[in-house]
Amino acid sequence: MRIVIPLFDGVTALDAVGPYEVLRMLPEAEVVFAAAAPGTHRDGAGALGLLATASFRDVTAADVLLVPGGPGARRGVTDEPLLDWIRRLHATTTWTTSVCTGSLLLGAAGLLDGLTATTHWSAVDLLESYGARYTARRVVEQPGGIITAAGVSSGIDMALRLAELIAGRVAAEAFQLAIEYDPQPPFDSGSYAKASDEAKAYLANRP
Amino acid sequence: MRIVIPLFDGVTALDAVGPYEVLRMLPEAEVVFAAAAPGTHRDGAGALGLLATASFRDVTAADVLLVPGGPGARRGVTDEPLLDWIRRLHATTTWTTSVCTGSLLLGAAGLLDGLTATTHWSAVDLLESYGARYTARRVVEQPGGIITAAGVSSGIDMALRLAELIAGRVAAEAFQLAIEYDPQPPFDSGSYAKASDEAKAYLANRP
Repeated sequence: MRIVIPLFDGVTALDAVGPYEVLRMLPEAEVVFAAAAPGTHRDGAGALGLLATASFRDVTAADVLLVPGGPGARRGVTDEPLLDWIRRLHATTTWTTSVCTGSLLLGAAGLLDGLTATTHWSAVDLLESYGARYTARRVVEQPGGIITAAGVSSGIDMALRLAELIAGRVAAEAFQLAIEYDPQPPFDSGSYAKASDEAKAYLANRP
Repeated sequence: MRIVIPLFDGVTALDAVGPYEVLRMLPEAEVVFAAAAPGTHRDGAGALGLLATASFRDVTAADVLLVPGGPGARRGVTDEPLLDWIRRLHATTTWTTSVCTGSLLLGAAGLLDGLTATTHWSAVDLLESYGARYTARRVVEQPGGIITAAGVSSGIDMALRLAELIAGRVAAEAFQLAIEYDPQPPFDSGSYAKASDEAKAYLANRP
């Protein structure tokens, strides 16, 4: 069970790390963090470096491809070598998945045309520019093994569903227990539909 | 607003990265990942490397100290230089916090004696061996600015509460929206009280 997670400068770390902490527990899981070149890649905020141990050239097949988002994913939509690699990997996968604006990379690679998909709430128009139909659901499963998740933290929910599909419900429930994922957010501001105008204005006006 | 997150080999990546994605958005946030020596530190599962850019020696003060857990935290309870550093940092902080078994490091440093605290459900006895009273709550605030969170994913909930304490409710709600934290786990198996015997047995018998 080979799970491949691409990294790039400007990745949102939680997009990758949330699902990683679930999928790494799959039976005989081998997780590979890959990038254009091996080495440390800085996240979107710049304070955290994540290590890719393999290069895209060396990773030619996967059971699960999980594409994270972030500012680097938005920039990556014109990175033809990256998009080619995603297309080639996808031809080998059982599951091709994205978190947050990772869906833009799947879209730019031509994998979402005519499909229903999700992404971060701020990237809806971009997603639809690749021929996808956006839906404000948290995890969207489509034929061909394509699963997209909404913004950042939604990758944890997606990974639990994916774990169920791969290893069954008891295993997935065990992984949920292992990461003590019994979420109790102190507010109810986690979606664009629920957040207040004040919270949206605060976010829009951050330096 | 300086937020310091120690890294060590065997850290659970999500313990650090979940709160990081919230706290990095605080006004004028400077997040520093520090370790005994700068460089890449492998997580508990071994597939992911996280970069520390500073050494403990160079980090002598923080507004927020956030101590993640993992197998390396369990080992760290006898690492006197690490515990000394935690004590010295704590003397400078407004908030000293832990996620998962990071609480064992706070306990071993003597910071939880006589306090109520939480940790990963599998580490309750160890936590109490340091004089803390365990409570099965997800986020526990105590006098002196000490906040402990339960296992792994609970750090996100803690960080949102901490963001509210530091920057106010509208800011914290904005951060929740930014990471689209509208959790929808597909099962309800995220606490020891809720998980089935089958899920617990699966976890206990993983290779």
